[in-house]
Amino acid sequence: MSQTLTRTIDLNCDMGESYGAWKMGADAEVMPHISSANIAAGFHAGDPATIRKTVRLAVDNGVAIGVHPSLPDIMGFGRRAMKISPQELYDLIIYQAGAVEGFARAAGAKLHHVKCHGALYNMAANDQPLSDAMARAVKDLGGGVILYGLAGSTMMACAKRHGVPAVGEGFADRGYMNDGTLAPRGQAGALIEQEAKAVAQALAMVEQRTVTSLSGKRVAVEVGTLCLHGDQPGAVAFAKALRREFTARGIGVSAP
Amino acid sequence: MSQTLTRTIDLNCDMGESYGAWKMGADAEVMPHISSANIAAGFHAGDPATIRKTVRLAVDNGVAIGVHPSLPDIMGFGRRAMKISPQELYDLIIYQAGAVEGFARAAGAKLHHVKCHGALYNMAANDQPLSDAMARAVKDLGGGVILYGLAGSTMMACAKRHGVPAVGEGFADRGYMNDGTLAPRGQAGALIEQEAKAVAQALAMVEQRTVTSLSGKRVAVEVGTLCLHGDQPGAVAFAKALRREFTARGIGVSAP
Amino acid sequence: MSQTLTRTIDLNCDMGESYGAWKMGADAEVMPHISSANIAAGFHAGDPATIRKTVRLAVDNGVAIGVHPSLPDIMGFGRRAMKISPQELYDLIIYQAGAVEGFARAAGAKLHHVKCHGALYNMAANDQPLSDAMARAVKDLGGGVILYGLAGSTMMACAKRHGVPAVGEGFADRGYMNDGTLAPRGQAGALIEQEAKAVAQALAMVEQRTVTSLSGKRVAVEVGTLCLHGDQPGAVAFAKALRREFTARGIGVSAP
Amino acid sequence: MSQTLTRTIDLNCDMGESYGAWKMGADAEVMPHISSANIAAGFHAGDPATIRKTVRLAVDNGVAIGVHPSLPDIMGFGRRAMKISPQELYDLIIYQAGAVEGFARAAGAKLHHVKCHGALYNMAANDQPLSDAMARAVKDLGGGVILYGLAGSTMMACAKRHGVPAVGEGFADRGYMNDGTLAPRGQAGALIEQEAKAVAQALAMVEQRTVTSLSGKRVAVEVGTLCLHGDQPGAVAFAKALRREFTARGIGVSAP
Repeated sequence: MSQTLTRTIDLNCDMGESYGAWKMGADAEVMPHISSANIAAGFHAGDPATIRKTVRLAVDNGVAIGVHPSLPDIMGFGRRAMKISPQELYDLIIYQAGAVEGFARAAGAKLHHVKCHGALYNMAANDQPLSDAMARAVKDLGGGVILYGLAGSTMMACAKRHGVPAVGEGFADRGYMNDGTLAPRGQAGALIEQEAKAVAQALAMVEQRTVTSLSGKRVAVEVGTLCLHGDQPGAVAFAKALRREFTARGIGVSAP
Repeated sequence: MSQTLTRTIDLNCDMGESYGAWKMGADAEVMPHISSANIAAGFHAGDPATIRKTVRLAVDNGVAIGVHPSLPDIMGFGRRAMKISPQELYDLIIYQAGAVEGFARAAGAKLHHVKCHGALYNMAANDQPLSDAMARAVKDLGGGVILYGLAGSTMMACAKRHGVPAVGEGFADRGYMNDGTLAPRGQAGALIEQEAKAVAQALAMVEQRTVTSLSGKRVAVEVGTLCLHGDQPGAVAFAKALRREFTARGIGVSAP
Repeated sequence: MSQTLTRTIDLNCDMGESYGAWKMGADAEVMPHISSANIAAGFHAGDPATIRKTVRLAVDNGVAIGVHPSLPDIMGFGRRAMKISPQELYDLIIYQAGAVEGFARAAGAKLHHVKCHGALYNMAANDQPLSDAMARAVKDLGGGVILYGLAGSTMMACAKRHGVPAVGEGFADRGYMNDGTLAPRGQAGALIEQEAKAVAQALAMVEQRTVTSLSGKRVAVEVGTLCLHGDQPGAVAFAKALRREFTARGIGVSAP
Repeated sequence: MSQTLTRTIDLNCDMGESYGAWKMGADAEVMPHISSANIAAGFHAGDPATIRKTVRLAVDNGVAIGVHPSLPDIMGFGRRAMKISPQELYDLIIYQAGAVEGFARAAGAKLHHVKCHGALYNMAANDQPLSDAMARAVKDLGGGVILYGLAGSTMMACAKRHGVPAVGEGFADRGYMNDGTLAPRGQAGALIEQEAKAVAQALAMVEQRTVTSLSGKRVAVEVGTLCLHGDQPGAVAFAKALRREFTARGIGVSAP
């Protein structure tokens, strides 16, 4: 892989997670700092009006439009695992991707990527039949739509096998295990709260394609996109710090 | 208008109105007899799995795939009028059209038309701001998507003004008023239950571009598509009778 | 009516309007200042967990527990009028009242009152068949449950005729018309933003049972409860100012 | 236990599983043959109008009114397991029980029992924290409400420990394992389709408090209520056969 490639990275963020009268997130503040928006599609958040406004905001900021499909669980914000069949997963993806694509089309844009939300993201990442259904869905959407998934996961391997464009996602602010998986949230070090440390982890992922695990092991990771947690208080400050450092080191930020 | 044009008509039918464990309609029986399917999109009926299966059924029968968007009212089957703004209508159309288009795309097909469901159909037909939003939505969907609306309604005039492809819908089994509007359901003669009479009304609409009102007046109507009520017991029999008569008179049945 | 009675008033406020991951209102701050809580019941806001917490908060503050039933419209926050039958209204009330009553019972308390939300409140206030269904529902709930409705409305007259306990609601911060109805929101003076003016209007309602209309006419009103708009920035400050003035004048605040 | 007690059994059936325009079940046909109705409460089926009608039907037939609470999953008919916390389960039970109790009260009746639906029934049966939350919910509902749960399950033990009235449920038409649990649906013999065999199993449960497992072992079971699967074609015929046999043997059918 050429050096040029290692010098460009995508910054993605979940967007459009308001619903009707309820507001969530600071979309307008965060949007200028990212390259990919994962837009809620109505199943955990994101009523039609919110999708339209979020797509518009993305277009105005030159940000790539993705769909952020979820299990059908408005009441639980898509955070509760649910036993669904691979076919049910496939159907959920197509439906929600289509809905967001409708607004993208109406705004003169295109659907760029799919990144699952919450429990669906975690459930499908390392489940073979669900990963398979996921890859099949993105393939059937066609049009060059890219699958964003956990770097090093079964889903990424699945996408490769199906010939589906896919990009591995890394987390600057999450601790990693020796096998390259995320440390469970309960564990000490699972969340990285110091900005400097998170920036350093991001840089290592981009420049060296590695992450240092909680127990100190250097692990290879194939990260094409970094996740920015937009619902956290310091999201904008962190995004700025990250981009400042990237600029200083000649790393570009753009959607894959 | 040339004679050839008067010799082709579209037969449309609402489809995919099951939901989860609940079944409705006889889609598999009706589909072979129509040329356009209006597929429920999840807001009054039509969960994602049902949409997928209905799209597949349409593709297998060479039937044009339309979306049948509704007010958000699963509990009321989209039959209860709801005070929504033109912008809300626009958003509802784009969302639901996109969702069905997603399944069409995944099946190698395209979204062909939009026909509103239930209360939304009636509310928007002769309301200027809603008709306007409707036309704007179909225009923004682009790709040649056609708007099906009540023949002679404000919505048809609106579509014309916006340069949106539109087709007027006629009803073989509904009584008409002198001004070309449908007789309210309570009124005597509002529903035409004799097959022969309904077939005759359909023929007049297609061949002479007229309908005879309940009080006997011949009224001009611009009908490009006839609505088949698929949820009625005799739907298949009526469709066959209609097509037999059409064939006998050299009238072709195909989607616009 | 004795002077003692005119010296007691109820302060009610809509409560529990969060939903799942989304927060709304400052319930914990407002609760200590009111005597009646109208708790959202899941149809425009208020998931089961939120109802439970809000009921607990009311119990802890000695506040009467009411249900705040809505049209079924989470996406529109119950603000969009919907054409429902009187029977549908009846069913919506019983269902939502029962649900909140379940939590009240589990907390060792009782359901005290019913006050409709948003579009349902306005639709039913002066519609005879809907008001009738409303009164019938509250009667069937039994157990002394009280109906809160717009003072002077058809609904209040209806409740009286059905022998249903009912209390008229007044608004300190809304302008009134000569016939005792609320000035439409668009109209100049419809919203009273000066605290002193709103306090004065509240006092006149409580002490003199009158309100001065926007054109200066003194109109009789039978107000047993005042509505506090809890979602407005100055809600707590206004509640305190009101209660300070009430205390100074020997007016008690308690639920009917 | 005295002989008299072994000579009375409850027949329960899931009821009110229509939703809006969609019909399910043959409630009016089945109701005369059962003693307990488990009424869907809006989360997997059962809109408010359906609940009202079903409660009325139960009252008219002298059938005890129970609630049939579900995970929040209309689209999946409550059949998909969902990872919920014990507190979430508690809240779901109170909400749905309250809603059905509201209609019971309005019809001059009372809520008699709680029996969970679908995935919730299975998830909670042998999960200690969920069973505990279940027992706590039924206790907090108070008023003598009875918990129906899988005979011999953790939930039954839990209810006993909490001092909650509880009744074990047996299945005439399901195969059992040596440990008294139900044979998984995939397994040979899991479903008993011959009427005579199912009647015999019911009789053994009632008269001898035993069931013969698929591998031939006689297992003790404490069954106070038998489940009738109302959605199956032969439901009414089976209920009649069962009751004929019960009558012949002096076994009464009544709610606990």
